[in-house]
Amino acid sequence: MRATLIYGAGDVRVEEVPDPKIQHPTDAVVRVLRSCVCGSDLWPYGSMPASEHGGRIGHEFLGVVEDIGSDVSGLKSGDLVVAPFVWSDNTCDFCREGLHTACRHGGLWARDGIDGGQGEAVRVPQAQGTLVKLPVAEDSALLPSLLTLSDVFCTGHHCAVTAGVNPLTTVTVVGDGAVGLSAVLAARRLGAERIILMGRHKDRTDLGLDFGATEVVAERGEEGIERVRELTGGDGTHTVLECVGTLPALEMSLGVVRAGGTVSRVGAPQYGEVPLGFPEFMNNITLTGGVAPARAYIGELLPDVLEGRVEPGRVFDRTVSLDDVPEGYRAMAGREALKVLIQP
Amino acid sequence: MRATLIYGAGDVRVEEVPDPKIQHPTDAVVRVLRSCVCGSDLWPYGSMPASEHGGRIGHEFLGVVEDIGSDVSGLKSGDLVVAPFVWSDNTCDFCREGLHTACRHGGLWARDGIDGGQGEAVRVPQAQGTLVKLPVAEDSALLPSLLTLSDVFCTGHHCAVTAGVNPLTTVTVVGDGAVGLSAVLAARRLGAERIILMGRHKDRTDLGLDFGATEVVAERGEEGIERVRELTGGDGTHTVLECVGTLPALEMSLGVVRAGGTVSRVGAPQYGEVPLGFPEFMNNITLTGGVAPARAYIGELLPDVLEGRVEPGRVFDRTVSLDDVPEGYRAMAGREALKVLIQP
Repeated sequence: MRATLIYGAGDVRVEEVPDPKIQHPTDAVVRVLRSCVCGSDLWPYGSMPASEHGGRIGHEFLGVVEDIGSDVSGLKSGDLVVAPFVWSDNTCDFCREGLHTACRHGGLWARDGIDGGQGEAVRVPQAQGTLVKLPVAEDSALLPSLLTLSDVFCTGHHCAVTAGVNPLTTVTVVGDGAVGLSAVLAARRLGAERIILMGRHKDRTDLGLDFGATEVVAERGEEGIERVRELTGGDGTHTVLECVGTLPALEMSLGVVRAGGTVSRVGAPQYGEVPLGFPEFMNNITLTGGVAPARAYIGELLPDVLEGRVEPGRVFDRTVSLDDVPEGYRAMAGREALKVLIQP
Repeated sequence: MRATLIYGAGDVRVEEVPDPKIQHPTDAVVRVLRSCVCGSDLWPYGSMPASEHGGRIGHEFLGVVEDIGSDVSGLKSGDLVVAPFVWSDNTCDFCREGLHTACRHGGLWARDGIDGGQGEAVRVPQAQGTLVKLPVAEDSALLPSLLTLSDVFCTGHHCAVTAGVNPLTTVTVVGDGAVGLSAVLAARRLGAERIILMGRHKDRTDLGLDFGATEVVAERGEEGIERVRELTGGDGTHTVLECVGTLPALEMSLGVVRAGGTVSRVGAPQYGEVPLGFPEFMNNITLTGGVAPARAYIGELLPDVLEGRVEPGRVFDRTVSLDDVPEGYRAMAGREALKVLIQP
C-alpha cells in the first residue's frame, strides 16, 4: 500500500510500504477513508533534520475495519470507525480516569513500528480499546466532522474542559488555527457566552465568529494583551485557551488571564520554561491542559456531531488525494490552507 | 505603642510607633493578643538590603477590638477576632468568588501605611469584611490554633484544595516547615489516605506523622524523586503540595507528580521561570495554587479548630514576648524553631 513518510523539513513523500497485517490478537486493520494533516505535523515539517530513512507520519484517521485479531470483540469487518490520535486499551487505571494518553498499554501513531494515519490502511494496536464505531455510511457528508473527533475537536474540547469553561466564565482563545477555532466551538458548546478570539487571519476569525466567538482581537503581544484588558474592564478573562504552542502565545495568555483564572494549553510547547513567578503566584493563576485524551471525549461529543449541532469539520478548507499530501503540507505550512483533509 | 520593624537582612527591631487610630469609617483598631513569624517573613530577613527607615512587618494576628469606625457593623469593642493575612471588603466580585487576595478594595499588611501584625495593636482597614469573630475568651488554650487561621493553616488548606485533594487522591507534601505540616493536616482533613511527606528534620516530620502523613521521605532532589516513585509503583502521586517556594522544591514536585496530576504551590516563589515544557505537557500536569485567600476558608475551618478535631497550633514550638521578636526571627531563620508565636 501507499503511505506518507517524512524525510526531513519540507520533505514529505508518499511511497509504497508493506501492507498492514494483524500481528497481535488485539490488532485490527483499518482501511483509511479520511485522514488529515495536523498543525503538530508542521513542527517536524518545519525543522526536522534530513534523514535517509523516512518515518511514517499522521495520527488522525477514520476508516473501515478490514480485519480483526482474535481477541478483539465489539468490532467486525465492515464497521466504520474513528481512531483517536493516541491508541490505548481503554481499560487500565489511567484510561478509566479518562487519561488515555497515559494508557499503560498504549502509544502514539507513526512511532516504533506503528503505522501512521496518512496512508491507505493502518494496523491498529489495542483495537478494541482504541476504535470507536460510527453509525454512518462511507459516503456520509459527516465524515469531515467525524474525523475531527480523532484529534482537533477533542483537543479544543480538552482545552476548554481543563480550563473549566462553563456558562459563567469569560474565555479568551489564543490562536486562529484549526485547534483555536475548535476551542471556540467547544467553549460555546460548554455554554460560554463571551469568547474573545485572538487571531489575525480574517477568513479564520470569521469562521471563529460562526463557531461562537463574540469578539476578535487581531493585535498581538503587549498590544493584544492591552486590547483584551480594555475589553474586560482591565481584568482579563477567567479562562484562556492557548492553542498555538509558542512562548509568545503563552506569554500573551498569561497576560490576559484574570486573577484566579486558568490558562489551558493544548498546542505542543515549543519552549521549556514558563514565566510563572511571583506575579502569577500572587494572582493565583493556574496552568493546565496538555495532550488531549481524545478517546475519553468521543462518546460525549459524537451525538452533537451526528445530529449536526456542531460542525467541527468546517475547519477543513482543502481536500487532497494521497498523492497530493506533499502539496497539502506545503499549503498548510504556507497558511494557504487552514487544515487539509486527505481522501486516499 | 511598640511594633516590629525590619531594617534589612538580619535586622529586626521593636520600636515605639504612633498608636493606631480610626482613620476611615470602615476601620477598626485591634489590640493584638497573639501574632507570629511567617516563613515568608524570613525572605526579607534573609536578603533585604539595609535601609535607614525601617518598615513594619508581620501579617498574622488575632486580638480584641478596641475601637470601630462608624461604617462597621457586626463588630463591637471587646470582640475577639482573627485577621486573615490579606485585608479585604468581603463583598466585591473577587471576594464573592472566594479570591479575597484579589479584593478590589483590599491589600497587604505592613505596606503603604498599613500597620503590621507584629505589634501591640493594628488599625484594620475594611474591618467588617476582614475580621472574623472568635467565640472564645482571651485566655483560651485554643489561641495558637485559632491564630493559624490567619495564614498558615489556611495556606496549607488552600494548597490541598487547589490541588484537588480528596479521599481518592494520593498526596506528596514537599517541605516540613509550618506550611508543609499544615498542608499535611489539611490533606488528611480532606480525606487523603496516603500522604508522603518530604522533609529531613525528624522533629518536624514526626509532627507531620501526627498530623496524618503516612510516609516520610528524607531524601531530596533526584534521590527524593526516585524514592517517591519507588513508593508509588513508579507513578508518583496524584497531587503534590509544594510548600517551600524554591526552584529545587518545585522541580522535585514536578518529578513526583503522576500523569494527569496537579502540583499546587503555596510557598512564595523565589524563581521566575518554571520548567513546564514538552514532558509535562505530554503528561497533562497542572500547576496551580498561589497566595491563599485565608478569609474564604476561615468559616469552614473554624468549627474543626474550636472542637479540637484539628490542632494546627502545634506548629508553634516557641513563644516570645514582643521584646524578643528579634530573637524569634533569629531562631526561626536558624531552624532552631519551627514557628514562633508572639505574645505582646
